[in-house]
Amino acid sequence: MEYSSEETMLTFKRRVNFITTAYLPFVFSLTGTQMMCPMFSFHFFPIKTTSSALKGAIQLGIGYTVGNLTSKPDRDVLMQDFYVVESVFLPSEGSNLTPAHHYPDFRFKTYAPLAFRYFRDLFGIKPDDYLYSLVNEPLIELTNPGASGSLFYLTSDDEFIIKTVQHKEAKFLQRLLPGYYMNLNQNPRTLLPKFYGLYCIQSGGINIRLVVMNNVLPRSVKMHYKYDLKGSTYKRRASRKEREKSCPTYKDLDFQDMHEEGLYFDTETYNNLMKTLQRDCRVLESFKIMDYSLLLGVHVLDQSHREGGEPGQAGGDGRRPVGQRVLYSTAMESIQGDGKAAEALTTDDTMGGIPAKTHKEEKLLIFLGIIDILQSYRFIKKLEHSWKALVYDGDTVSVHRPGFYASRFLKFMSTRVFRKTQRKFARFIFATRESKQPSC
Amino acid sequence: MEYSSEETMLTFKRRVNFITTAYLPFVFSLTGTQMMCPMFSFHFFPIKTTSSALKGAIQLGIGYTVGNLTSKPDRDVLMQDFYVVESVFLPSEGSNLTPAHHYPDFRFKTYAPLAFRYFRDLFGIKPDDYLYSLVNEPLIELTNPGASGSLFYLTSDDEFIIKTVQHKEAKFLQRLLPGYYMNLNQNPRTLLPKFYGLYCIQSGGINIRLVVMNNVLPRSVKMHYKYDLKGSTYKRRASRKEREKSCPTYKDLDFQDMHEEGLYFDTETYNNLMKTLQRDCRVLESFKIMDYSLLLGVHVLDQSHREGGEPGQAGGDGRRPVGQRVLYSTAMESIQGDGKAAEALTTDDTMGGIPAKTHKEEKLLIFLGIIDILQSYRFIKKLEHSWKALVYDGDTVSVHRPGFYASRFLKFMSTRVFRKTQRKFARFIFATRESKQPSC
Repeated sequence: MEYSSEETMLTFKRRVNFITTAYLPFVFSLTGTQMMCPMFSFHFFPIKTTSSALKGAIQLGIGYTVGNLTSKPDRDVLMQDFYVVESVFLPSEGSNLTPAHHYPDFRFKTYAPLAFRYFRDLFGIKPDDYLYSLVNEPLIELTNPGASGSLFYLTSDDEFIIKTVQHKEAKFLQRLLPGYYMNLNQNPRTLLPKFYGLYCIQSGGINIRLVVMNNVLPRSVKMHYKYDLKGSTYKRRASRKEREKSCPTYKDLDFQDMHEEGLYFDTETYNNLMKTLQRDCRVLESFKIMDYSLLLGVHVLDQSHREGGEPGQAGGDGRRPVGQRVLYSTAMESIQGDGKAAEALTTDDTMGGIPAKTHKEEKLLIFLGIIDILQSYRFIKKLEHSWKALVYDGDTVSVHRPGFYASRFLKFMSTRVFRKTQRKFARFIFATRESKQPSC
Repeated sequence: MEYSSEETMLTFKRRVNFITTAYLPFVFSLTGTQMMCPMFSFHFFPIKTTSSALKGAIQLGIGYTVGNLTSKPDRDVLMQDFYVVESVFLPSEGSNLTPAHHYPDFRFKTYAPLAFRYFRDLFGIKPDDYLYSLVNEPLIELTNPGASGSLFYLTSDDEFIIKTVQHKEAKFLQRLLPGYYMNLNQNPRTLLPKFYGLYCIQSGGINIRLVVMNNVLPRSVKMHYKYDLKGSTYKRRASRKEREKSCPTYKDLDFQDMHEEGLYFDTETYNNLMKTLQRDCRVLESFKIMDYSLLLGVHVLDQSHREGGEPGQAGGDGRRPVGQRVLYSTAMESIQGDGKAAEALTTDDTMGGIPAKTHKEEKLLIFLGIIDILQSYRFIKKLEHSWKALVYDGDTVSVHRPGFYASRFLKFMSTRVFRKTQRKFARFIFATRESKQPSC
């Protein structure tokens, strides 16, 4: 089903608007054709078809806005910088300021450009590196790991996730920024999402809002288990459809079945992890945020060796060039770094994962981060569900008041998921490395 | 004129309220008598009489609130902490929580206690030191240096100023805090006022709001000249009444007469000073703040020697115990320190002042800070005056739009007030010291 260019723009917009609102969570009406004249196409399942156009527009837009920023002198970030929105029109034929391109005309908006530049700097990300990661290499589309209807793109170097967000989520992030980064300034150790940019692409009457964030689960490390944990037990089991995937995302009840004894850390690591989670949950509670999850990836080192891989190249898909280091946010850095020097805490052995063990002494690498913190507005919509859940089990409702949510989340993580052992783990990764060296 | 205790409380409150609103900028209706039963007195010039009672209530209140804070665990400051107001009632007969005292019952409110604790920590002020400075030694009342009608108290160690502020100023400070301290976090070098606490004393239907700030002009150093500079020339000359004082505060036109050639700094110091002023003015402009002043104290070293003093004990009034160091904010530290280590940049020679010279090579120490940043709401009241001034001289109106105000302020400071010389001043203070040593 295609609409030719003879169809009037107005009719097209109406159709697209209707369908995006009523049916699809996201439609981007740009094609990847080589035509310089705008040509709109539409499919009932347009994500595959239009995704390359969206990727192109993202890269053009970010390339323009980050490049443009370099000409602005470095200065202190002011409160008002959080509320600035910069906008540029990128016609396909190009302009004095923007290059020609093969997509329909679009407008690219950058939210709080100076504030986000400051935050990227706070996280040790240089403008050139940000540009290179996002613009110079192809973006990889991920299958949607959640039920949010968002699209996810990963940069080729595994560092950044681009996620489409709804209007309300983008607004909420804008409102959140001053206080959120006030906390980041005090506490660079955090498992909260690290937001590096907020953008909007406008074309054909449609707005697509995007956040750039840190990537919690590197693709170059095979995750033998993947969990989305909330500390609730009500309906917290992966669906049959999810289980059929090659790498399903399991939930709380699945975790309890699969890792009944939890995951063991040495005392120092356990304490750092818990302290970080506590501080993060306090921030989330202060913003009345709930319904967030801990995204948890478990890499089983022994299993990986049996499969012939190693963490630095594990999964064996060769996406990350061999020898490339993790540059920015890692799990290890998030709980005991200073926010900037991920490299110092990251070896090629661990790829930034946190050493852990099962109760059977199996060696693990743990990757984790708190996700989905922008959806608190859903609370109202979920009230009915919540009420039913309350009747079903007053203590295990996933959506509850923020203080209760935070303390239940923390209790679950500190007792059921993560446990401490008295033994030091410091050498076990290196032991692994040594055991591999003779084969070199 | 006194009201006995037989007069009903209601009548008294009405009278006091009427007079405070209509006539006096501030009345505090507590007496310093030893009576345990509240006894109200009132005078047309009550400041002297009631001031000791106010000082007592300040010290009791701050003593209680800071002591109370020590029991609260240290944690990250959250956005919501800026909006917290803690309140305690201190009856004269004492309570479980508060000591008995010799003043009428009063309520003491502490604004944003955790946020201010964090900021005091940011400035390197330990709770015990803050308590000691404010509570354990007598407060010294200063004659009002401005036209604001505020009362000023100085702590005995010269470190802190307590200033009474109007309701709107306190509100404005509360609103300002998140963004203001966002900037302080990025930029500890600042000549903006450093706010260490905001309090309110309620008694007999009257609210007295107080801010605790850094002291710009140490009393232990004799200021041979003192200026309040705005970068405007319209009506910027000290009044005859002001000139008759022993240490008048002069204004812009006076400065131009008295220091026609300006004050000379070595290049590095000049650049640091200008950079600090520029960043500060950008923050003020971003908050639409105008009408602020640079408070500037000039200590002439040669003159001081002729008078037989030296900076560390100069003025000869012996208020600061000999040998006591400046602990916190100093002028020197404000332009080239890290916000915490005033001691490292402060010697007994300079008492934190910035070395400078006149064009005649007279050696100076400069003390300075930006003051009166909370009064921007006055703008509306001053519109009429401003309009007249505009007619008189379009370019020299003291009250103007914030961007214009900031750039005129900066231009005046960078060209008329402060100038740079190529010569290094590094040794001249020590030379002074050496020249004095033979007499020891």
